[in-house]
Amino acid sequence: MRLTQWTDYSLRVLMYCAVHQQREQPVTISEIAEAHGISRSHLTKIVMTLSALGYLETTRGRGGGLRLLVPAEQIVLGEVVRQTETDFNLVECFDAAANQCRIAGLCGLKHVLADALGAYLAKLDAVTLADLVLPPPLEQPLRRMPRAAPAKQPQRAGG
Amino acid sequence: MRLTQWTDYSLRVLMYCAVHQQREQPVTISEIAEAHGISRSHLTKIVMTLSALGYLETTRGRGGGLRLLVPAEQIVLGEVVRQTETDFNLVECFDAAANQCRIAGLCGLKHVLADALGAYLAKLDAVTLADLVLPPPLEQPLRRMPRAAPAKQPQRAGG
Repeated sequence: MRLTQWTDYSLRVLMYCAVHQQREQPVTISEIAEAHGISRSHLTKIVMTLSALGYLETTRGRGGGLRLLVPAEQIVLGEVVRQTETDFNLVECFDAAANQCRIAGLCGLKHVLADALGAYLAKLDAVTLADLVLPPPLEQPLRRMPRAAPAKQPQRAGG
Repeated sequence: MRLTQWTDYSLRVLMYCAVHQQREQPVTISEIAEAHGISRSHLTKIVMTLSALGYLETTRGRGGGLRLLVPAEQIVLGEVVRQTETDFNLVECFDAAANQCRIAGLCGLKHVLADALGAYLAKLDAVTLADLVLPPPLEQPLRRMPRAAPAKQPQRAGG
C-alpha cells in the first residue's frame, strides 16, 4: 500500500516550485536536491517527466530553472498521482496479462479492491497542489496561536 | 499502491476455506497449494499466521486440515487486510522513525493521504469474506439468467 518513491519525489518537486513560484529567480534542480537530500540525477529525470507532462516549464543556462506551467490551484493531486504511479495493480488479477490467479472471474475481491481504490483516488481528486502547501513556518504559530485560556475552575465531585 | 503478496495469498486461503466450509473433510494446505500453484512451505507460514490471528482452526494427522473458526459472514475484509499488510506507510513521513523528509510538519500531503487511506479501508470494512465468495461457476449463469427480453418497438423520431 505504498506510493512509489517516484511519486513521492515528484510531489516534493511540485510543492517546492509552488512555494517559490513568486520568486524572481526560478527554482533549480540543485536547490531542490540540496533541500531534500535527494540525488541530482534522480531529480533531473523526475523534472524531465513533469515537464513532459506539462506541469513544469524548464529554462536552460544562467538564470534558468523550473517554474510551474499551471497555477498550483489547478494541479489536482489525483491526476498527478495517476500519472506518476507505475500502476494501480493492487493484486495480480488487476493485470490481465500477468495474472496467474486461478480463481479470477469467480472471486469478488477484484471488484471490492477497485471500489476501494476509487474511493482513495476520489479523495486525492478533491485536493490541489495549493492545498498541500501550508504557510511558511514562522507565520503559522502567529496566525494560529490561540488566546490564553482562562484558568479552569475545579469541579466538585458531587453535584 | 499494491497489497503485499502475503495479503493476497492470505485472502485466497480464507476464501478457499469459506467455499469448502460445509465439506466433511477439512481443507488441506497441499490442496490449496495445488489449486493456486503456490509453494506449500509459503502457504504453511500463512496458515500458521491466520491460525494465530484466530481465523483458522488447524487439526493435525490423518483427516486433519483447516477450517474457518469464525463464520465467513463475520470476517471483515478490512480487519484481515490491516492484520496481514506489513504497514500502511504510503510515503516515508508516515513512519516517524524512518522519516528523512525535511518538510514533514509543513506539508499537507500526509493528512491528505491518511484521509484517502481511510476512505480505502472504509470500503473494505463494509465487505465480509462471504461477500467475496461467489456461487460456484455452474450455478451463476442459471441463477442470474435474465428472461428473454421482449422485442423492442422502434421509437418514432417525433413525438
